[in-house]
Amino acid sequence: MFKRLLIANRGEIAVRIIRACQELGIETVAVYSDVDEHALHVQLADYAYHIGPADAAQSYLNMEAILAAATATKAEAIHPGYGFLSENADFADLVTNSGFIWVGPRSETIRKVGNKDAARAAMKAAGLPMTKGTNPIKNNEEAYQFAEELGYPVILKPVSGGGGKSMFVINTRQDLETALHKVDVTKAAFYFENYISQSRHIEVQIMADNFGNILHLGERECSLQRRNQKILEEAPSSALTSEMRHKVGALAIRAAKSVHYTNVGTVEFLMDVKSGKFYFMEINPRIQVEHAITETITGIDLVRRQIRIAAGEPLNKRQEDIQYLGHAIECRINAEDPENHFLPAPGQIEFYHEPGGPRVRIDSGVCAGLAVEPYYDSMIAKVIAHGRTRGDAIKIMIRALNEFRITGIKTTIPFHQRVLSNPHFCTGDIDTQFVYKHMSSCEPVKPKKLNPRAADTSLVNSAW
Amino acid sequence: MFKRLLIANRGEIAVRIIRACQELGIETVAVYSDVDEHALHVQLADYAYHIGPADAAQSYLNMEAILAAATATKAEAIHPGYGFLSENADFADLVTNSGFIWVGPRSETIRKVGNKDAARAAMKAAGLPMTKGTNPIKNNEEAYQFAEELGYPVILKPVSGGGGKSMFVINTRQDLETALHKVDVTKAAFYFENYISQSRHIEVQIMADNFGNILHLGERECSLQRRNQKILEEAPSSALTSEMRHKVGALAIRAAKSVHYTNVGTVEFLMDVKSGKFYFMEINPRIQVEHAITETITGIDLVRRQIRIAAGEPLNKRQEDIQYLGHAIECRINAEDPENHFLPAPGQIEFYHEPGGPRVRIDSGVCAGLAVEPYYDSMIAKVIAHGRTRGDAIKIMIRALNEFRITGIKTTIPFHQRVLSNPHFCTGDIDTQFVYKHMSSCEPVKPKKLNPRAADTSLVNSAW
Repeated sequence: MFKRLLIANRGEIAVRIIRACQELGIETVAVYSDVDEHALHVQLADYAYHIGPADAAQSYLNMEAILAAATATKAEAIHPGYGFLSENADFADLVTNSGFIWVGPRSETIRKVGNKDAARAAMKAAGLPMTKGTNPIKNNEEAYQFAEELGYPVILKPVSGGGGKSMFVINTRQDLETALHKVDVTKAAFYFENYISQSRHIEVQIMADNFGNILHLGERECSLQRRNQKILEEAPSSALTSEMRHKVGALAIRAAKSVHYTNVGTVEFLMDVKSGKFYFMEINPRIQVEHAITETITGIDLVRRQIRIAAGEPLNKRQEDIQYLGHAIECRINAEDPENHFLPAPGQIEFYHEPGGPRVRIDSGVCAGLAVEPYYDSMIAKVIAHGRTRGDAIKIMIRALNEFRITGIKTTIPFHQRVLSNPHFCTGDIDTQFVYKHMSSCEPVKPKKLNPRAADTSLVNSAW
Repeated sequence: MFKRLLIANRGEIAVRIIRACQELGIETVAVYSDVDEHALHVQLADYAYHIGPADAAQSYLNMEAILAAATATKAEAIHPGYGFLSENADFADLVTNSGFIWVGPRSETIRKVGNKDAARAAMKAAGLPMTKGTNPIKNNEEAYQFAEELGYPVILKPVSGGGGKSMFVINTRQDLETALHKVDVTKAAFYFENYISQSRHIEVQIMADNFGNILHLGERECSLQRRNQKILEEAPSSALTSEMRHKVGALAIRAAKSVHYTNVGTVEFLMDVKSGKFYFMEINPRIQVEHAITETITGIDLVRRQIRIAAGEPLNKRQEDIQYLGHAIECRINAEDPENHFLPAPGQIEFYHEPGGPRVRIDSGVCAGLAVEPYYDSMIAKVIAHGRTRGDAIKIMIRALNEFRITGIKTTIPFHQRVLSNPHFCTGDIDTQFVYKHMSSCEPVKPKKLNPRAADTSLVNSAW
């Protein structure tokens, strides 16, 4: 096992990686931009190295600066976290060619799964079930022709990249005309897929060592999305029988094997609610935000595993050793104003007190006194609840969110409270349109009954 | 299930009970003294009721005031927590005679196990293994006579009461003379027991419903004590084989059955390190501080169980359903100065940030801005780490304590950090004298390596 690891990231995932390293006895190097000098990940790491200005392009996306930091601090390995450079095959190459260990899949794998068009072709060849799709579009005329050949509704997707950017659901020729005013399809960077009208986002966590052993750790349901960004995830999915779990797990392993996958990763599927069929979407060659819910129900530490696999350790488990215990839900706490179109709400955090007690886990990148910067992702914390059943997990999450006190910035906590009290959510009647169908016009949850003796004091007002 | 429960307690256990109630859909009533108006348990409860001045005798020990609060707030049940009135059989009688549900064992049971002399007689009759003991001592002459008959070393113990108060290890007649200057033995309130020179404190968690079903949930090792106060506990004990666990569990069930035990409770044993034999010590008829480590390895929520049993629910498990997963350690974080004889260190908490991440649970009764009051117990938080193995749990606890930031008051965190890095502790070579043998003269752990770029800033200095 190596002795020192550099984390090419910030925020909660950097803190998460520091925790895993400390438990493994590995020293950590944090990197930081100008505005992150006091950030939590900088505070908790053994070493910290300044890499540039606040603008991510000059710091957390600055490959040269990060490699220079790794050299200067004598780090042996580099963990990219999620986002930033985590899916950049060129960076993975640079890291390994500079003599560092890359904590992630091989660059060839990242490259292959990063090009959606190539990935779809590879997966089709491997026998994965696919929604019907077109070749990359070369011009507007081809766009109309392809869409009509495929049949509306279709979805217009970028060939490369991920994270839900620039995807358009096209129901009619009129919709397509609107979309073509927004995106330039003349560079063969977009293609169409058939759009499934009612679908659930089901993704499978996989884990593979450098010796050809590969396991799946069950599914996560991430149907609750807003503008293709996940907001609340759960494991297992309330839509899957154990037979379906077995089936989609086998599909994920087949997909991963076809690209010689190593380290941890996620194979995303769209599940057609009507037919119960799974369609391959994409492979994310990195740790994901929502990895904690899989850790919670399997007891397997995915970040420690990433590091141990990268250090050359073989998997010591078989598929039948993977057991699922209870139900986990994760709420992403973002510095956004849910009452105002989820606009980012950066600012100084004044009071900050996290929930605690049994069956609650908090992964956070902030503390009181720090500022949420406008330069980066607005997620500041994740709350994970572990219940015996889905209903139990919902109750635990509700009580945990009631305890969470953040002042100084707006957060998505009230939005989550509304979701958790929605009867459709509570019965598991969810799909990828849930937020638009059920959460757009609903009333704010009435504030938690306040204890009148305590509520009007100065301390309570300032601190809570 | 009842709808509203009053918590006759404060601090972390009050918060713990509120969490259990919220997850069960039960409304909570907090009671508070003058100085606790802004306390965390008051903030989190649905209702709060003032019961008197800071002095516990006039508030948290004031039976009339608590019953009046329960009547005024239409509570149906009363949970006493630990400490305060939790082992007061008269209060349990008052509660039930006033028409409330008492969340705890029957008053007859509390009364029987509360008198150590009567309890020893009952346990001896039930066939529990006992250290040899004497009758209550009536005067100084009898003290010398009894001690010599029993044979030194002996331990001088009070007949009633608990919590480790006024116990004296007597190795010689000279020691006894010294002890007799400190305690008045003329009121038949003390007796002698044989003293086992090297022992471990092993206690068994039991759980019994109102229908005669009773289970044990394995043992906790609480050998790390200072002045008979537990400071760090773990489950399972590193000294027990599964055969020994089975044996001591059966002894605990036998003890509990002999006093018709209901609800949750603990049977404490002294284990002779040399022989591996267990000797009955006492039964604690309440939830214990260290209950969380048993919850962690069994997945059973003991506080929810207390409430469900009190509401008349039968146990839905058999002994063979109880499974133990991994290893849990709890560190009690007290507002005490470990560099100055563990003197209580009350004061205003300035910055407060709890550890997070996987396999860490925090049960706390405080937050930033609150004062730790000198009137009550100095424990402010518990950190629980859950590892796959004991070694893993130790590493997780070390990284969690490194993350814990409290300014404004002194705490026992540095002491725990020393314990966790002690080689005797790490190999499980512990007994009830561990703290005196290994922790009295050891050097402070060297401070965590600070990141020089962050350490000299105003924010870091003020906030961390």
